[in-house]
Amino acid sequence: MASRKEVADLAGVSEATVSRVLNGVGPIKEETRRKVIEASEQLGYVPSALARSFARSKSGNLGVVLPYVPKAHLFSAYFFSEMLSGIGSKARDNGMDLLVMFRTPGEVMNYTDLFRRQKVDACIILGARDDHGELAALQQLQQEGHPFCIMSQHFAGESFMEVDADHVDGSRQAIRHLTDQGYRNIAFLNGPDSYSNSQERLQGVQIGMNEAGMELDSSLLLEGNYGRRSGVEAAATIATRLDEIDAVFAANDRMAIGVMHGLRERGIKVQDFPAFVGYDDSDAAEMAVPPLSSVRVPFYEMGELAASKLIHASLGAAASSVNTELPAETARQLLPTELIIRASSIRNN
Amino acid sequence: MASRKEVADLAGVSEATVSRVLNGVGPIKEETRRKVIEASEQLGYVPSALARSFARSKSGNLGVVLPYVPKAHLFSAYFFSEMLSGIGSKARDNGMDLLVMFRTPGEVMNYTDLFRRQKVDACIILGARDDHGELAALQQLQQEGHPFCIMSQHFAGESFMEVDADHVDGSRQAIRHLTDQGYRNIAFLNGPDSYSNSQERLQGVQIGMNEAGMELDSSLLLEGNYGRRSGVEAAATIATRLDEIDAVFAANDRMAIGVMHGLRERGIKVQDFPAFVGYDDSDAAEMAVPPLSSVRVPFYEMGELAASKLIHASLGAAASSVNTELPAETARQLLPTELIIRASSIRNN
Repeated sequence: MASRKEVADLAGVSEATVSRVLNGVGPIKEETRRKVIEASEQLGYVPSALARSFARSKSGNLGVVLPYVPKAHLFSAYFFSEMLSGIGSKARDNGMDLLVMFRTPGEVMNYTDLFRRQKVDACIILGARDDHGELAALQQLQQEGHPFCIMSQHFAGESFMEVDADHVDGSRQAIRHLTDQGYRNIAFLNGPDSYSNSQERLQGVQIGMNEAGMELDSSLLLEGNYGRRSGVEAAATIATRLDEIDAVFAANDRMAIGVMHGLRERGIKVQDFPAFVGYDDSDAAEMAVPPLSSVRVPFYEMGELAASKLIHASLGAAASSVNTELPAETARQLLPTELIIRASSIRNN
Repeated sequence: MASRKEVADLAGVSEATVSRVLNGVGPIKEETRRKVIEASEQLGYVPSALARSFARSKSGNLGVVLPYVPKAHLFSAYFFSEMLSGIGSKARDNGMDLLVMFRTPGEVMNYTDLFRRQKVDACIILGARDDHGELAALQQLQQEGHPFCIMSQHFAGESFMEVDADHVDGSRQAIRHLTDQGYRNIAFLNGPDSYSNSQERLQGVQIGMNEAGMELDSSLLLEGNYGRRSGVEAAATIATRLDEIDAVFAANDRMAIGVMHGLRERGIKVQDFPAFVGYDDSDAAEMAVPPLSSVRVPFYEMGELAASKLIHASLGAAASSVNTELPAETARQLLPTELIIRASSIRNN
């Protein structure tokens, strides 16, 4: 079999470049990559990725763990699809592939096993659960020094690498926008309390209310499950109290739009709608009628950030020193959120 | 190191089950899987996935190649996200992970290399290009007997395994729905001619027109790029000819909604809109105002079908005999499309 030097000579590049190309490490010009691959093939120097991976204990894969619900069309959820797009973009820029793994609800994921079995070099966990089994699995991962990052879930008291958006401030902005216009009876349709993201929204709502000298009326605090259907259901409650409720803040756009649909189904006209503010600023917000004000969450940028942090961690110094040495305050990184104002929440009278 | 038999005894299962679990082959009950993994770990029998893969030349990964456009938020496109959800579902059911790889536009993809380097056991190609380099790469893949499947692109004269939807019939249905209600001047906003899917839509439009005793007026044939923006641009042409154009058929929902937005921007009221039929039946269709009639494409089911075909091919007999022996007529499989009628295309007068 040909040597690495022969491949380098034929391709007209250095031996180091041959290694970088064949190990998929670092950014490499497409033309250079092609030259090296062609030279390798011409000389019969096509090392098996597995043999190479075996030698250097790297798979070249960035893992992404997603919660799996049969038939749920997971990739179609705005939340996940945007984060995955950002993750994929950074992975691609760094010559890594994306290994998508699904976790069945209720299953305790053996994250450590993914690293021991060398399926991934680093791992992003979406939809982590806030329960004892999950926490123990993540603590083990950290003890063994494997690079991982949790997105959109916060484990208080731990120093896991986490990437999220500032939902406290986003929710505060939404409430302030409403109270500044004189809305007083604001219904808040939150997601399940088990997600830290829901708890943060509630906190932001309370801060916003307090800033306006108000208190959250607990009878106006509703709970959905982040699905459109649960918004339609909440509309039943809201419709009966439309004489008092003058604004609705929903913890995501799907629920806000569900409430709008539910009101419309009950024959309530758009001009009689309360003010609406949603959350996520998904495509649907702009297309809603009336166009929906919404708190923009930079999901794509969050995905890019998480991937970048991990790629640097796994390519950099010994992975074992990375996670454990990160001080808690830099381990968690929050990107800013921004309220986008559209017709649904602008007071006309 | 412990033997497979010891693991089997401790877990209370057969040795074959131990192998199936550790090789990730076939459907396995979660409880059984856990028992085997726990027994393996207890006995220190945790074979490296790479070593195992090396021995059996299987990665356990189902590859998906996607076209990559920087910043394009690819996973957020309805088309891709639904197909990936279907693919992911079948992969998960069969204990396989999904290896997502991105292809830069203009790059000639070395598909064969993915198999030679044992990154994947089978591969799905989305967004294949209809050009010479791509065709040659696919022909090589087939000659070497690697299981692969092309989605949403047709290579005429080849016997590649292909999964697509019946876009000729879908477009015919859309046109017949319009002509049956008496619409005569139908503008057709198609996507780029380089996609076989666009060509099929045009063919369906012509058939539908002919069935109604009409011919497609070439001055009413417009071309966009499947993006919303190109619909907004087409609205400029449509707006100036609204006295003659009484219906618009767009090759996807995003363009149809773009046309609606463009008309609205020009101060044209919904009651003065032409009839609209879109294509894909994405989430956006239902949420549009007026709700958009659209041709439903079973993207999710297409993803499931492609994954199933490949998983059977790669798990079944020697992969080398699978692709090459498929007769052309079964190599290509089309799922039916269905027109969903909503308010946008129902004639009131």
